[in-house]
Amino acid sequence: MRIDRKRLEESMEALGRIGATARGGLNRVALTDDDRRGRDLLVSWMREAGLTVTVDQMGNIFGQRAGEDGLPPVMMGSHADSVPTGGKYDGQLGVLCALETIRTLNDGKVRTRHPVAMAIFTNEEGARFQPAMIGSGVMAGKIALEDAYNARDRDGVRLGDELERIGYLGPEPCIPRPLRAYLELHIEQGPVLEEQRLPVGVVEGIVAIAWSRVTLTGVQDHAGPTPMRIRHDALVAAADIVSGVREIAKKIGGDLVTTVGNLTVHPNIVNAIPGKVTLSIDMRDPRGETLVTARQRLDAVVKDACTREGVRYELEHYWQVPSTPFAPDVVAAIERAAVESGARHRHILSGAGHDAQYMAAIGPAGMIFVPSRDGRSHCEEEFTPMDDIERGATTLFLAAVDLAGRV
Amino acid sequence: MRIDRKRLEESMEALGRIGATARGGLNRVALTDDDRRGRDLLVSWMREAGLTVTVDQMGNIFGQRAGEDGLPPVMMGSHADSVPTGGKYDGQLGVLCALETIRTLNDGKVRTRHPVAMAIFTNEEGARFQPAMIGSGVMAGKIALEDAYNARDRDGVRLGDELERIGYLGPEPCIPRPLRAYLELHIEQGPVLEEQRLPVGVVEGIVAIAWSRVTLTGVQDHAGPTPMRIRHDALVAAADIVSGVREIAKKIGGDLVTTVGNLTVHPNIVNAIPGKVTLSIDMRDPRGETLVTARQRLDAVVKDACTREGVRYELEHYWQVPSTPFAPDVVAAIERAAVESGARHRHILSGAGHDAQYMAAIGPAGMIFVPSRDGRSHCEEEFTPMDDIERGATTLFLAAVDLAGRV
Repeated sequence: MRIDRKRLEESMEALGRIGATARGGLNRVALTDDDRRGRDLLVSWMREAGLTVTVDQMGNIFGQRAGEDGLPPVMMGSHADSVPTGGKYDGQLGVLCALETIRTLNDGKVRTRHPVAMAIFTNEEGARFQPAMIGSGVMAGKIALEDAYNARDRDGVRLGDELERIGYLGPEPCIPRPLRAYLELHIEQGPVLEEQRLPVGVVEGIVAIAWSRVTLTGVQDHAGPTPMRIRHDALVAAADIVSGVREIAKKIGGDLVTTVGNLTVHPNIVNAIPGKVTLSIDMRDPRGETLVTARQRLDAVVKDACTREGVRYELEHYWQVPSTPFAPDVVAAIERAAVESGARHRHILSGAGHDAQYMAAIGPAGMIFVPSRDGRSHCEEEFTPMDDIERGATTLFLAAVDLAGRV
Repeated sequence: MRIDRKRLEESMEALGRIGATARGGLNRVALTDDDRRGRDLLVSWMREAGLTVTVDQMGNIFGQRAGEDGLPPVMMGSHADSVPTGGKYDGQLGVLCALETIRTLNDGKVRTRHPVAMAIFTNEEGARFQPAMIGSGVMAGKIALEDAYNARDRDGVRLGDELERIGYLGPEPCIPRPLRAYLELHIEQGPVLEEQRLPVGVVEGIVAIAWSRVTLTGVQDHAGPTPMRIRHDALVAAADIVSGVREIAKKIGGDLVTTVGNLTVHPNIVNAIPGKVTLSIDMRDPRGETLVTARQRLDAVVKDACTREGVRYELEHYWQVPSTPFAPDVVAAIERAAVESGARHRHILSGAGHDAQYMAAIGPAGMIFVPSRDGRSHCEEEFTPMDDIERGATTLFLAAVDLAGRV
């Protein structure tokens, strides 16, 4: 019994057309009309596969294939939203490999002791509504439902209103439920598997992540007649912070990564000295202690930059997730499945947050990585060869059957 | 015979309500609905004052009060558009002081040898459509009409289409016409007059201005799993450039001012390494030679920053205006008027570009400055005391009568 590579590829193509960009990427940001169209297609496929489909209060979609009564399910999941001008693999691939596993079980008329289920989580990317992984975060009890509903995008639109607008504000409570295991296949989004020519990564856990936000208030003024000596330029202070954030990673070294991804200038015109800048800082490391040190350095970087330029600031460390080790028995099941599928593999840590991180707080969780060409993701060039996808999907299938227990 | 301070103040208040912000500023960006409403009000006032009103192909509005036949007019002008969240004095004040001059001539039934005219120029600020001062620029033959029509705002909307939409795509050719003199009253937008407690500045000329634009192309990637060693972060290079631009002014010194006012990041989300950044550089100095040196340093700053980060760049020096000395006879007339009005005054250079800069290419031009509180402009806090405005307006009135020749 094996997964149907051609069917999987066709599903990837069909789903990838919804929100496709001209240059082969994907622009299917959470709770947009394209997100709704993608969800609708997935739900229709899930129903065709005979799954019982439910939607919870956060718009998370679940489809369950019956097992023996009373046992908790083996759930496979990921997300269907993308970053703006992102790629066709991040998220979508995990959802479709989960669906392919269920279709393959159906093909073989396989009966399992535990139900086998799939999940599609809302707003994993955090590109439109923050924080990221908000759907699984509420489910795990780590984010309050009301806070999630009140998250607003740049235009001030509420997440709760958008859920309702696209028809995915479901009736089911968004709460933890018993799980035999949670499995997520995802692209690595880093260079390791490709560099080592390995199709599968057995993920041991996820690094710790800290997000901070700085708001800088200088003095908006005309770029011409305002002498340099009286300037308080919010962007000059922001530039110092961007350089300083890069420097933190250089000085601390190791696996620490630091990024300023978002920076917005006001009024953002050629001939006005910027009066206000907001910027984000994303820092990650396998060890939570390193992030504590990095955050202390960040405090100093921001303070020094603003003192030099005479700019006021507000610094918020607004989101942290500790490093997440995955469940040893699930990691072991994934490794057995990789061996059985003949996929060369290695153990690896995830540098990106995933829904699996929150699901690990509910039950035993694990992840399977497949390679990313040039280590790239969150861009239109995101790509994973179909041969690697086939090996990853087979590993997912075998691990799910292993954990669910064939009858 | 004197200007009517109360009437001027009331007109400032009435016009200032169109596009007013909650915090006392003005948001009346070029060719928006509010710009149209402001223009409509001004045109109605101009007609009430008995002026012959015409609109040219660039939406520049002219109103002329008859003089003796065949002589070229003394034209007073400025602009009615603002920067986003700007103030109520930049532009609007010059237009209303011109109108007040005409109303005062009417009150006194004064006849002049030269006609006295007023002008309202389109899109002086360059906040929405670039370059700045596009209406007077086309009139002076320095910008092609077609290029002006094809200027696009951030949403891709064409200037020509917006002119038509708001009903100000006029029939008159936008070309140079004979002028006795061009006079513009404007706020200083710098700290000099206020620091020296002088209500009037007799402007001798305008500094040279150079605008450049850099587009940086790095590698967009995920902020988590992408090791620091393989990053090509467009924003890290941009930050180096912002710091370097500040450094250019510090090293060269003198009156040189350098500003990065506009910086836009793509995709601009917390967890993506920025793949693309565009930024603007505005440099000004009384001496054009200084700007040549500054531009050479800028070339080096951009090249070094991009080499360090492994980022590709495109650097365009896309707009320059040389320093503009005003006509000695007009400057002398303004000085006589300042003396006659009893306004303490000094000679001063303008650090900002103004429509007077292009008008100086058509005929003899000059400017009158009034103080800016704390030297601030292009912000909601922009303010000039009414006592200073009265002295400035009187100076404008007296200079216009002097140059037009009373019959």
